Amino acid sequence: MNEYWWETSCRTADPLILEEAAARQRQLTKPAGSLGLLEQVAVTLAGLQGRARPCVDSLWIAIFAADHGVVAEGVSAFPQAVTGQMLRNFVSGGAAISVLARQLDARLEVLDLGTAVPLEPLTGVRHLDLGRGTGNFVQGPAMSSEQLLLALAAGRDSVLRAGEGGAQLYLGGEMGIGNTTAASALACVLLDCVPLELAGPGTGLDSAGVAHKAQVIEAALRFHGAQLDTPLELLRRLGGLEIAALVGAYLACAQQGLPVLVDGFICSVAALLAVRLNPGCRAWLLFAHRGAEPGHGRVLQALDAEPLLQLGLRLGEGSGAALAVPLLQLACRLHNEMATFAEAAVADKPA
Amino acid sequence: MNEYWWETSCRTADPLILEEAAARQRQLTKPAGSLGLLEQVAVTLAGLQGRARPCVDSLWIAIFAADHGVVAEGVSAFPQAVTGQMLRNFVSGGAAISVLARQLDARLEVLDLGTAVPLEPLTGVRHLDLGRGTGNFVQGPAMSSEQLLLALAAGRDSVLRAGEGGAQLYLGGEMGIGNTTAASALACVLLDCVPLELAGPGTGLDSAGVAHKAQVIEAALRFHGAQLDTPLELLRRLGGLEIAALVGAYLACAQQGLPVLVDGFICSVAALLAVRLNPGCRAWLLFAHRGAEPGHGRVLQALDAEPLLQLGLRLGEGSGAALAVPLLQLACRLHNEMATFAEAAVADKPA
Repeated sequence: MNEYWWETSCRTADPLILEEAAARQRQLTKPAGSLGLLEQVAVTLAGLQGRARPCVDSLWIAIFAADHGVVAEGVSAFPQAVTGQMLRNFVSGGAAISVLARQLDARLEVLDLGTAVPLEPLTGVRHLDLGRGTGNFVQGPAMSSEQLLLALAAGRDSVLRAGEGGAQLYLGGEMGIGNTTAASALACVLLDCVPLELAGPGTGLDSAGVAHKAQVIEAALRFHGAQLDTPLELLRRLGGLEIAALVGAYLACAQQGLPVLVDGFICSVAALLAVRLNPGCRAWLLFAHRGAEPGHGRVLQALDAEPLLQLGLRLGEGSGAALAVPLLQLACRLHNEMATFAEAAVADKPA
Repeated sequence: MNEYWWETSCRTADPLILEEAAARQRQLTKPAGSLGLLEQVAVTLAGLQGRARPCVDSLWIAIFAADHGVVAEGVSAFPQAVTGQMLRNFVSGGAAISVLARQLDARLEVLDLGTAVPLEPLTGVRHLDLGRGTGNFVQGPAMSSEQLLLALAAGRDSVLRAGEGGAQLYLGGEMGIGNTTAASALACVLLDCVPLELAGPGTGLDSAGVAHKAQVIEAALRFHGAQLDTPLELLRRLGGLEIAALVGAYLACAQQGLPVLVDGFICSVAALLAVRLNPGCRAWLLFAHRGAEPGHGRVLQALDAEPLLQLGLRLGEGSGAALAVPLLQLACRLHNEMATFAEAAVADKPA
């Protein structure tokens, strides 16, 4: 394994196809621009896929699960055992993302990067066993360098499998009790914000819980201080195994030329880290939704992202990304199948 | 025909099913409220359909098309012949709503209430021939009383057909060059606003065009003055045949117990008129999107509506409603198919 695989250059959109797709949009039987964001989405996908008629019918959803040592500080409303319990729920079909994947006819891959409570092997789960979750980042780095590299590679390997499986769109999701705390800590450094600006209720903290969460993040930022000076070291010290896997996955998608639909707050923080590590990654990222977590809007702004949905979602698991898939698919169908003014003998607006 | 059929009482949601559905949402394996607006949507649909497991797979889309005499004042960027040309495009499969209906496996019904340019009969279009569009409402009432009653009944009859066809969700759409001018005029009276607050670019006016459109509406409001004192007379004087049909359709849906997904600005104005005519109608209306037309937000606010999408759409044809359908369907699937905490043996958040 090359330690720096993520620095390899990303692929780029095809400029001729982009131009052709934009020209086609102007000829379709509708007022120019009247399909709003969906017109841009179709043109972007055409350029990324290098085909005049984009298609995102073949979907790959990877859920990365891991535990977080910082939960020892009392930052989550749910017990840590839930991470493992939800892994079982993902593969037995009862979780939100299981229902959505079934409905969308998506391939669902579930990866266990390391839970705090040891699990018996679960059929349908890839157990990678990178540790019993991360260390408590208030007292030390969340991960070792080896763990970080393995987690990044786990994301990349998922993307390679997606490519072999013929995926046209990659959706990453996450599960890990405590991971909004890790994501908020990362975002504080990436955006140069204080924790009170970014910490939110996650899966259900009350205001006292949010204040405590912000204090925990503050303590971690003090502890690590100037050592958080590169995106990679930041990720190692304050991140999570599933967050690192998402970073690796997004980077690999951009290198392999596979468009990504980014889910909520935690995935967006992973996306921002991926873009800081390799800016060419940005072009491959489409954003599904603006979630309920207060820091999400700030992270999206830093990414110059215009998400498709805003429904007050805060579940994770890739569920928000899955919910936005039909919009991408319909945007492609409209682009591909609508008649032009000439074909339909409809009068265009006089110039 | 009873002249006052629209005053017959509307059906109501089943309170026991509403309670049962809300209780089920709290037991599903996700943090309470984490699916945001989609949780409310599933509970609302359960109550309206009177079934614990709601389902909106069977869709009826009706497109009402008509021309507007006020186009003589130069309020549209497109020539009036486009209304008829688009009728042909709807049934030949090249319009946005044709593509969406096909993709959603929806029944698409196309109704011609009266075009300015006479049309040869089109296969697949119901030609109702209520006139060559409306009269120019700057100089007189848009419709006669008879035309108004026939247009309202055309909407109702579409809903009766939808019911016979087993529809679980009704989507209305509209097409008519000049109809944002009519809808803006109606909204000015309904919301007690001046035209400059509500007039927008429609399908593509520039700022001078918008200013002129506002002046035209002002002239109409002066002309009709105090005669716009009831919702029905307002609709007759300033409305359109397709807008009246939508009003009739929404009222009939509420009376028949068929949930509605409301499209953009023009449909929302029709919805507001329907609610003013019979307030019980409101409960049956779900709102698909907040469109680009500036008056749309004001109308949605008056309806206390929280739409699902905000994508900068301004096409009409029911296209925005169609685009939101997958979200409703996925909300139902999540509600119906997710495991409960007990079923999945997942720890709930401690109370």
